[in-house]
Amino acid sequence: MPSRKDLANAVRALSMDAVQKAQSGHPGAPMGLADVAEVLWNDYFKHNPANPSWPDRDRFVLSNGHGSMLQYSLLHLTGYDLGIEDLKQFRQLHSRTPGHPEYGYTPGVETTTGPLGQGLANAVGMALAEKNLAAQFNRDGHEVIDHYTYCVVGDGCLMEGISHEASSLAGTLGLGKLVVFYDDNGISIDGDVSGWFTDDTAKRFEAYNWQVIAGVDGHDPEAVKNAIEKARGNTEQPTLICCRTVIGFGSPGKAGSESSHGAPLGDDEIEATRQNLGWNHGAFEVPDDLYQAWDARETGAAAEKDWNERFAAYEKAYPELAAELRRRLAGELPSDFSQKAQDYIRQCQEGGENMATRKASQKTLNAYGPVLPELVGGSADLAGSNNTLWSDCQAITAGDASGNYVYYGVREFAMTAIGSGMALHGGVVPYVATFLIFMEYARNATRMAALMKQRNVLVYTHDSIGLGEDGPTHQPVEQLATLRQTPNMSLWRPCDTVETAVAWKAAIERSDGPTALVFTRQALAHQDRDEQQLADIERGGYILSDSDGFPELILIATGSEVALAQEAATQLRDQGRQVRVVSMPSTDRFEAQPAEYRQKVLPAEVTCRVAVEAGITDYWYKYVGMEGRVLGMTTFGESAPAGPLFEAFGFTVDNLLAISETLLDDMA
Amino acid sequence: MPSRKDLANAVRALSMDAVQKAQSGHPGAPMGLADVAEVLWNDYFKHNPANPSWPDRDRFVLSNGHGSMLQYSLLHLTGYDLGIEDLKQFRQLHSRTPGHPEYGYTPGVETTTGPLGQGLANAVGMALAEKNLAAQFNRDGHEVIDHYTYCVVGDGCLMEGISHEASSLAGTLGLGKLVVFYDDNGISIDGDVSGWFTDDTAKRFEAYNWQVIAGVDGHDPEAVKNAIEKARGNTEQPTLICCRTVIGFGSPGKAGSESSHGAPLGDDEIEATRQNLGWNHGAFEVPDDLYQAWDARETGAAAEKDWNERFAAYEKAYPELAAELRRRLAGELPSDFSQKAQDYIRQCQEGGENMATRKASQKTLNAYGPVLPELVGGSADLAGSNNTLWSDCQAITAGDASGNYVYYGVREFAMTAIGSGMALHGGVVPYVATFLIFMEYARNATRMAALMKQRNVLVYTHDSIGLGEDGPTHQPVEQLATLRQTPNMSLWRPCDTVETAVAWKAAIERSDGPTALVFTRQALAHQDRDEQQLADIERGGYILSDSDGFPELILIATGSEVALAQEAATQLRDQGRQVRVVSMPSTDRFEAQPAEYRQKVLPAEVTCRVAVEAGITDYWYKYVGMEGRVLGMTTFGESAPAGPLFEAFGFTVDNLLAISETLLDDMA
Repeated sequence: MPSRKDLANAVRALSMDAVQKAQSGHPGAPMGLADVAEVLWNDYFKHNPANPSWPDRDRFVLSNGHGSMLQYSLLHLTGYDLGIEDLKQFRQLHSRTPGHPEYGYTPGVETTTGPLGQGLANAVGMALAEKNLAAQFNRDGHEVIDHYTYCVVGDGCLMEGISHEASSLAGTLGLGKLVVFYDDNGISIDGDVSGWFTDDTAKRFEAYNWQVIAGVDGHDPEAVKNAIEKARGNTEQPTLICCRTVIGFGSPGKAGSESSHGAPLGDDEIEATRQNLGWNHGAFEVPDDLYQAWDARETGAAAEKDWNERFAAYEKAYPELAAELRRRLAGELPSDFSQKAQDYIRQCQEGGENMATRKASQKTLNAYGPVLPELVGGSADLAGSNNTLWSDCQAITAGDASGNYVYYGVREFAMTAIGSGMALHGGVVPYVATFLIFMEYARNATRMAALMKQRNVLVYTHDSIGLGEDGPTHQPVEQLATLRQTPNMSLWRPCDTVETAVAWKAAIERSDGPTALVFTRQALAHQDRDEQQLADIERGGYILSDSDGFPELILIATGSEVALAQEAATQLRDQGRQVRVVSMPSTDRFEAQPAEYRQKVLPAEVTCRVAVEAGITDYWYKYVGMEGRVLGMTTFGESAPAGPLFEAFGFTVDNLLAISETLLDDMA
Repeated sequence: MPSRKDLANAVRALSMDAVQKAQSGHPGAPMGLADVAEVLWNDYFKHNPANPSWPDRDRFVLSNGHGSMLQYSLLHLTGYDLGIEDLKQFRQLHSRTPGHPEYGYTPGVETTTGPLGQGLANAVGMALAEKNLAAQFNRDGHEVIDHYTYCVVGDGCLMEGISHEASSLAGTLGLGKLVVFYDDNGISIDGDVSGWFTDDTAKRFEAYNWQVIAGVDGHDPEAVKNAIEKARGNTEQPTLICCRTVIGFGSPGKAGSESSHGAPLGDDEIEATRQNLGWNHGAFEVPDDLYQAWDARETGAAAEKDWNERFAAYEKAYPELAAELRRRLAGELPSDFSQKAQDYIRQCQEGGENMATRKASQKTLNAYGPVLPELVGGSADLAGSNNTLWSDCQAITAGDASGNYVYYGVREFAMTAIGSGMALHGGVVPYVATFLIFMEYARNATRMAALMKQRNVLVYTHDSIGLGEDGPTHQPVEQLATLRQTPNMSLWRPCDTVETAVAWKAAIERSDGPTALVFTRQALAHQDRDEQQLADIERGGYILSDSDGFPELILIATGSEVALAQEAATQLRDQGRQVRVVSMPSTDRFEAQPAEYRQKVLPAEVTCRVAVEAGITDYWYKYVGMEGRVLGMTTFGESAPAGPLFEAFGFTVDNLLAISETLLDDMA
């Protein structure tokens, strides 16, 4: 029977071998964490390697994602569909073992990590989703949602600000089934952290109302085991287990040094490490008895089988609840959602109300919310401004997590990553909100949501200088362009209640990526549409008003500038000009349309084009070319009421007319 | 003699009156903080209202910038050039009292605040600059640099992650002359913070090795005074003074409630507040005796005079040091810098070395650094990867702050805002570094540097998929576009050692804004240039190689893609094509050139254009139009070595040739 040390050494050997073969990677963390991971995975971790999507599995998040070989080794050894050949392809193109754990590439990888601290926030989101679902669906004697979320963090994660935001909120919400291992190895890339990281981390987390188990020897399996027992025993508070470890453990020449962090050990040092560890096997060789001891397929299958039986009992006792839980875990929307949304969209068109799109958004939530019990909303302390509360919102609290709204506090970055964590967990559809400008505080989490293809709905209000007096620190300029230029990010900037309702429908129905919904603070005018126009909104760009004949000028506008374009077009038509107005609430959706449709809306022959948007001009040259014009922003805004601001920055009918007329003359 | 309460009430009255007149703003924080501010400003704050740029003044930063009327009231009352008419223009276009404090708009405003938590990080930067300059310039008996940095933070600031990063580092660096007041009023926008913010903040800051003075009654001047005494008495640790305050203090109907946070109190409530406070004066009326008691002009002038005398004595004893300090405080570069840089640039051209631009950057630092003692570098735990350490770097530590390098730890956001804080303080020229992708963690601080026009040099390495194996989480795609689209941000993406040296020179010499210097991980080929080309680099875009006759095709490229364009152009020319290559390291510098120059480089007649950059394609349509082509990225990257990645994403000579030939044929 292999010793615990032997088991851990298999992880160390595979990690150093894979990094060496790739000539790239991070052996230090996996070697330092091998003992901790061995105890967790062999003694506690509930999972079924044959079914990585079993809903009630424990979650494992490696927030210090550069230590990816730890996770790949564990997945390989315990029997996931990740062979030794996969490990040999570490960091190679299209392999299942990319440099950092990438969600969707590797069975068993629950989230993409690497950007430090975000894995921790994802884990908070997973633990929150678990607590929320458990509160909604479990019944006495039927604990069908009941799993832990384990997360490993390094010094880097804990230095990052997002660790503060996420941990503070986790403490407030009492996420008792979140267990975090701190890989306290005292080393970061620049060397011994004592020069730049002198926090008393245990005390810090106590201040967050966590259970802290300090001073655990991360190379003593018994100590680790005791700590995990204590962590699991406290379901009122999240737990931080501070594990003192040696980075690159086992390497006689590099252990305890930053030299083992981010580079291969080298052939000689690997040989010396093998000898030092007593690991008498070739590269990528693991003896059968170790494979057998690690193999979790049988226990995993039994665990899932047990859950299936328990779920069957639950289903018998609570058939409706069980069906609903199944639906939600499968990520399927209610079958009537699409039709109900469509009805509401038509209602908006008929209602013809003028209002701020942030208010139209709230109205939409009131329409869609009752059909979508999976919605879990929230805002970074701007509920009243973002209009994210709808009539059936109930706060999720430490004591009662059955609600559907999270008061995130002023924590945009953690909020966004927590949203992705909830989406990754499944069973809920999160929406998170802040002012558009403060998307920037969360910027990399929005990108990660896109990279991971997660349905995380990002509600951004106060979308331009139109927010007025708060001034340039609060007025977005380049943020629309940033989001549009993010691969796999969808963005909508609707112009009225109708486009707002379509945007929300698209965001909810988009199951393979995040959607940014961008709303105004100020009231916008309703736009008339015929049936075809109403149907075409979902194509992202459509002809909102047209010339009698073939257009000589096209005005392209979004959101608050659509009404401006419409008014200018009317006046130009009165002058006998052939003018088309294209409303373009979603450029990405428009670009996904067939070429024929795009050509119909924006004929290549019409090069006389003006784009109008109270955002940075640069983006729009893609649609107007070098010959066209853009009425947009080229500087920061100013503090003043919205009216004078739009005037000062040239967003007036007169100015748009002047630009259009000059362009028509120039190109005549 | 007016009472302290009367003095504080003047601040309350002006604040509520200005917000009411503007029909917009935040009365709650100023009214809650008035007593604390009164004690600080009247009893301790060292400043001269007649000279807001006196170098040794204390700094005051209102990190909860929405409480701007607190600061405007204080500046007005103590005698700055900010009259009552200015206060009446609160939040109006082009007034000196914008919605949030804006650096450069109002005498006495030290930094732009509003985006929560960043003011705190700016303050850390100011305290760090003070400590650094004091260590370098003070001599026994000559404390010419000796001032405090006072900062006020609200609950929102402390929830934001950046507060963790900045405070943790401030503790490590022992910034003893930083004094932070926590406006602990228990209210944020969504209401009572107990639902989302339950930190034990005192304990948290003790964990950062701060002196914490907890439980101070923020409405008891004696208690505040004692706390400030204790704070000033400890110069080894930064101090947090936790002030329990009542938001909207004095308002009988709204005090203690979020309703006083972000909206005018209303005429009736203002009247009730006047009565409640015993403030029997009209709107914007302050009795003379109160003005006299607040007036700090005389004591301020005396304080500066005393400093001038002490500086004169210092100058006598240490004439060279004094001259150097004067130069640095004036923000003037050494008179020989420009020439020495020019010489080095020429050397690079002659040297003709191939190397990664991140290494070329380090080489440049080794050339420029010895001439620039004001440089204070640093990296977010990537010194070896960012190549930010040069031969004369010495760490700034708690015990010895005389160095020129900050080990920031993994704290990109705070680092960037600290850099701006140092630049705002003056006397130093900061550069801060991380991977280009992690600019996103600091994103809003880069924007704030641009908004505040601060010389904060942003070094971003690993600038594309060329970084290789670390994969899509680490590979920038849209980040170049984001930075270029930020108003007042300058960006350089050089293609070799020569352009790198020019870029650094431009960044150092740009005194009215930040510059992003974007460097590769991988080696790049040297490019030949004649004298004119060498001189034209600083124009941001120039003809690197040309056709014999008028070009029929222009290839525009930056950084690592310049060599690719050059090679393709050579082959196309061999086929008899007239091809020009434009190297465009800085689009903003190019756009700042006269139209004539731009037309010379990119003649409007040549619409057959291909842009080549391993970044998002969208940005480049501005230069190639709807008819041109962009060889760039439209998706996230992948984890693999750089070679296979460039191949997989089409960055090959063959592909560029194919694109160019097709375009030439299409447009023929």
